[in-house]
Amino acid sequence: MKNNNDFVVTPYEVQGKVDYNKLMERFGTEPIDQALLERIRKHTGDLHFMLRRGTFFTHRDMNFILDEWEKGNKYYLYTGRGPSEDIHLGHLVPWIFTKWLQDKFKVKFIFQLTDDEKFLIEEKLSKEETYSFAIENACDVIALGFDHKNTEIIIDTDNAQTFYNIALPVAKKITYSTVKASFGFDNSINIGSVFYTSIQAVPAVLESVRQGKNIPCLIPHAIDQDPHFRLARDVLPRLGYYKPASIQCSFLPALGGPEGKMSASDPTQTVYVTDDPKTVEMKIKKHAFSGGQVSVAEHRKKGGDPDIDVSFQWLKILFEPDDKKIKTIEEDYRNGDMLTGELKAILIEKINTFLESHRSKREKARDQLDNYLVKD
Amino acid sequence: MKNNNDFVVTPYEVQGKVDYNKLMERFGTEPIDQALLERIRKHTGDLHFMLRRGTFFTHRDMNFILDEWEKGNKYYLYTGRGPSEDIHLGHLVPWIFTKWLQDKFKVKFIFQLTDDEKFLIEEKLSKEETYSFAIENACDVIALGFDHKNTEIIIDTDNAQTFYNIALPVAKKITYSTVKASFGFDNSINIGSVFYTSIQAVPAVLESVRQGKNIPCLIPHAIDQDPHFRLARDVLPRLGYYKPASIQCSFLPALGGPEGKMSASDPTQTVYVTDDPKTVEMKIKKHAFSGGQVSVAEHRKKGGDPDIDVSFQWLKILFEPDDKKIKTIEEDYRNGDMLTGELKAILIEKINTFLESHRSKREKARDQLDNYLVKD
Repeated sequence: MKNNNDFVVTPYEVQGKVDYNKLMERFGTEPIDQALLERIRKHTGDLHFMLRRGTFFTHRDMNFILDEWEKGNKYYLYTGRGPSEDIHLGHLVPWIFTKWLQDKFKVKFIFQLTDDEKFLIEEKLSKEETYSFAIENACDVIALGFDHKNTEIIIDTDNAQTFYNIALPVAKKITYSTVKASFGFDNSINIGSVFYTSIQAVPAVLESVRQGKNIPCLIPHAIDQDPHFRLARDVLPRLGYYKPASIQCSFLPALGGPEGKMSASDPTQTVYVTDDPKTVEMKIKKHAFSGGQVSVAEHRKKGGDPDIDVSFQWLKILFEPDDKKIKTIEEDYRNGDMLTGELKAILIEKINTFLESHRSKREKARDQLDNYLVKD
Repeated sequence: MKNNNDFVVTPYEVQGKVDYNKLMERFGTEPIDQALLERIRKHTGDLHFMLRRGTFFTHRDMNFILDEWEKGNKYYLYTGRGPSEDIHLGHLVPWIFTKWLQDKFKVKFIFQLTDDEKFLIEEKLSKEETYSFAIENACDVIALGFDHKNTEIIIDTDNAQTFYNIALPVAKKITYSTVKASFGFDNSINIGSVFYTSIQAVPAVLESVRQGKNIPCLIPHAIDQDPHFRLARDVLPRLGYYKPASIQCSFLPALGGPEGKMSASDPTQTVYVTDDPKTVEMKIKKHAFSGGQVSVAEHRKKGGDPDIDVSFQWLKILFEPDDKKIKTIEEDYRNGDMLTGELKAILIEKINTFLESHRSKREKARDQLDNYLVKD
């Protein structure tokens, strides 16, 4: 961790307890306020619980997206993922929200699988491995139910002819100094990783390139990716494109507690979509950080703290969309009527119900890959 | 120019009077000695005048290439060019030599046109411009008579799917520190240029990738490109490939004299393949640095110095293959029998004869592009 900072957030490192208000200030993003929520609701009819509860809490240029929308200029959605062996629940947060946006606005969605980046950053992974992860991760995306007529999944290494050519003018306008500062690299970084951010910028202009005119792009994503898109926003207007807009969420906390983001590589800190019901039960019971008291008696007396309880946070962020139900759980836990074990049981059941359905959908998704994957 | 060096040679900068012996030492290349010349002659029957006269003066692993050849393992040739608006005579030196090697060994030849690099390095050039230069330069290569059945011309941006994918593992093994030191970059360099050297490495393994087994690669090139291939030689064996071998030439001196290499951007220092006879005559008469004396009388008395006379050097390096003739010219000039004007007249005639034929061939080459160009 850097000396003068209490926490660090880059696409390649999250350390410390993230203060999201400070992070907004540091990154220069705007808070999602009531006025913006109402403006979104005007078009969507209702608000997704991730908006209502502030999981998506900050943005860049959402008002531009809505201005254009109100003029009849459709935007398109773009998000992505550095493929990993297993998708964990934290990855699903922005994807589920993106699906809601696609359903409400009926817009095109581009999902980028950055197997090149993953290969470059992870010393031990081969290209073949990161490519096979990309295929597996694509199944998870498809399983969430995106409309295949309006959705493209792009694996970088399958689209290098298109991507490299669009990335070149972007790369020409980004200096090593800028990348070093934005991502916290030192000079031992490999030159592929240095170049990579220009590849991540490509989907933000891909529709504009294809259609030969400027199309607004909205990127829902977890806030650690902001440095990539901040660079893209700086460079793309100098190439004649719109700045991509973004709507950004906080991280699903790791099982062990709210320090850092959930790592895909530590199985005790995360639940994978491939975890079977027993594993899920064991992980939540054993590892989910509790806001409860040391004994039942004391818990009944003093109550628990849902604000630091990971099981409650997971329900709030991902698994209990019903505001009344989440409020009841929160109150019951806070006043001691609900024990940690009971709270965990609710979460375990929610996760296992979701995952049973998800796994079945992701196996069916395997046969639908050709409907989604784009290749040069 | 750097403080402690009397000269600088990188792919992106040549400054000062190059001491080729020092440069060999600095780069760590081997001199081409009599034993190696004889070994080459054993296979070629004779020696190209660029070898006999030491224009190709240094190498890496030529003996490996010949060892493999003698075991029946064919090598292939690779060289290339950062496309520029006009090809000048200096560019032709390694190409003409490569043609000789192809004729003698009947081997495959890959010519890379690095329009991506040129676009990234030259602030003012657009991608469309560097691409159109690449097409024009391809005509010059074809005009030299390379066998189209054994020659591929590869424009980088037409082959990004192949090139980016092969470059990724190379890029993963090269740090920014290394590139910074090798090319003399500072941190204001754009990230595309940082990545680029991994693209220049690709043709050195392309045949091995295609054939699924290691094929030796020999790269004839001007010595300023050595830093690219030095990096490639460091990295490629760690990916299971052979180190590419190289055979390297000095620069054709600029018209103004032997400081630096001929720049494609200063028309008074160079002769372009598109220069008409009058322009050639004017340039040589007006700008070619003379080793002669200040007056005819003094020249007759003291003689000229062919070692510093640019016209003589051009004849020796490029335009007078006949050893007897070049020796006669050298002696006549040195002892004062030949005046600078007479020497220049010989060169002007040689250049114009060559260029008349070259221009006619390069126009015909336009219709043959499809026989040479490779695309993803």
